[in-house]
Amino acid sequence: METKTLSKAAPIIELPKPLEQLSEGEVERKACIGRLMTYTLNNLTSQFVEKDFQWLLPVALSQSTDPLWPDPGASIEKRIEVDIYGKTVRTTASMIIHKLIASSLAYPKLFILSPNIRIEKAERAKTGKHIYEFTQLDFEARNASTKGVMTLVEEVICNLLTSMKQDMKEELSLLCRCDTLELPKRPFKVYDRQELEVDYGADWEEGIAQETSDPVWVTNIPREFYDFEDFTTGKWDNYDLFMPQYGEVLSGAKREWEYEKILKKIERDNVDKYNYALVLKLAKEEKLKPTAGGGIGMERLVGWISGVEHVAETQPFPRAGNSAR
Amino acid sequence: METKTLSKAAPIIELPKPLEQLSEGEVERKACIGRLMTYTLNNLTSQFVEKDFQWLLPVALSQSTDPLWPDPGASIEKRIEVDIYGKTVRTTASMIIHKLIASSLAYPKLFILSPNIRIEKAERAKTGKHIYEFTQLDFEARNASTKGVMTLVEEVICNLLTSMKQDMKEELSLLCRCDTLELPKRPFKVYDRQELEVDYGADWEEGIAQETSDPVWVTNIPREFYDFEDFTTGKWDNYDLFMPQYGEVLSGAKREWEYEKILKKIERDNVDKYNYALVLKLAKEEKLKPTAGGGIGMERLVGWISGVEHVAETQPFPRAGNSAR
Repeated sequence: METKTLSKAAPIIELPKPLEQLSEGEVERKACIGRLMTYTLNNLTSQFVEKDFQWLLPVALSQSTDPLWPDPGASIEKRIEVDIYGKTVRTTASMIIHKLIASSLAYPKLFILSPNIRIEKAERAKTGKHIYEFTQLDFEARNASTKGVMTLVEEVICNLLTSMKQDMKEELSLLCRCDTLELPKRPFKVYDRQELEVDYGADWEEGIAQETSDPVWVTNIPREFYDFEDFTTGKWDNYDLFMPQYGEVLSGAKREWEYEKILKKIERDNVDKYNYALVLKLAKEEKLKPTAGGGIGMERLVGWISGVEHVAETQPFPRAGNSAR
Repeated sequence: METKTLSKAAPIIELPKPLEQLSEGEVERKACIGRLMTYTLNNLTSQFVEKDFQWLLPVALSQSTDPLWPDPGASIEKRIEVDIYGKTVRTTASMIIHKLIASSLAYPKLFILSPNIRIEKAERAKTGKHIYEFTQLDFEARNASTKGVMTLVEEVICNLLTSMKQDMKEELSLLCRCDTLELPKRPFKVYDRQELEVDYGADWEEGIAQETSDPVWVTNIPREFYDFEDFTTGKWDNYDLFMPQYGEVLSGAKREWEYEKILKKIERDNVDKYNYALVLKLAKEEKLKPTAGGGIGMERLVGWISGVEHVAETQPFPRAGNSAR
């Protein structure tokens, strides 16, 4: 999942220049953001390892990738499919299905630095938040609850910010973030998406991100079949994390694990059952376990920390626009 | 680069079973290899960060990927190309070109956990060493020498093995590697490929891997345009690292940086100049710097440590054969 609605009033953000067009000062700034990325990756992966999460390597081509559908602001321009060894595979949009299977069968607590490809409609590059390649720190834990995941994420992010403010003063100062990057109070506030719609209308994502001065959770967001939906109340047991004056940096959920529900939702969403045959089979055999997890967008998190205008500024080779190097 | 020749006498290794077909004992073994992978990733990334290498996130689709050519045992069945935003891009075979540019322009010392896609001819899956997706810890350093890279790699690998033998006794014991996984003596021996050809013929890779009881370097291997070639002596300033009773786990080189040489080699190799326009332009403007580096195949390194038959056993979702999940 990605932030879906684009505020009508949203400014158009210029695409970052490629490395070879940067001035000396701009290279210095780029390298400085790079050091914050290095610090963040090393700090977060070490924290997850410390907490007994297994570090899995990503898959790039697979049969069962994220359908990214239904999505109220559907924004995918192109889905990449290719035949290898007589089978049709897709470039990874997210490893959600692999996480469910791996967590259920062999690695109860896991994380992956997972590069995701989402060929967004070209105009989305100008939101400053969308890039067609990004890396998620994608984690999942068997038998975890929404509350458990929220506590974990809050702890991990506050630990990161605490050490970073200590160890990376020079970088934060160069980016003018020494004073403005505050250590959030825990626990973070939790909003229901329906409340926010009352206050902000369809633009609630932009609304809450601009209004809050602390990170906030938003729950109960209708989306893909794998997020847990309570058929009685109609509520979704999922969550996004929004950073102040920035926007969404994490998306996650408690997951479905029961065959009948998954099948019903796949059919309701008009998603191709064939591509999810394995997860359906495992659910039917009661081998799929209840899990919960999320994905932290690394470029967005470091983008928020660095205070960049465009998230692609955190990328050595910006993945926005048509200038693929 | 990958191990290129397949011994005529090489045994055919069975492809590993997918997660959902493993018995309880096999899952335990898989999870155990997973813990060694977690340990290795965390240990190596921390060591590179400690040594002031910047941690870059990978690119998945790009204009300039590794040509993997000329390659005496050329083994690529299919190259994946796709149009996005009006431009033809390829899935990453290696980030070599990006490393040269990034190291020259903004991140003098860098590393990437880079997923590489190489759709090898189907029969190569049976060597036990080839998978169509794997992750390299791909590093590069401005102004580094071959000797410098060798020293760095030897130190990093010996540090890893020393701590692992201390911290992961249970896992190594379950895999029967407590006694057989020895701490290598440094410096590792260095062979010239031409000497090995005299001793072992075309099968020198298999020959030296089977004969040696310590890791060894092999230098002077003719290959892609970006590896440094001395036009006077005809020698290549590059290197592969071979593990005893296993095979190659790292490939690297000092690189070319001079325009005339790069152009000449690209033309000699019949590689499409258009795809390397940026690196040629930078070289012409003398913005490309001399660098050296290498890529450690994470699945192969952990495969060697774990003593697996097939390198795909180190993957939660084995990338060998036609069973993409």
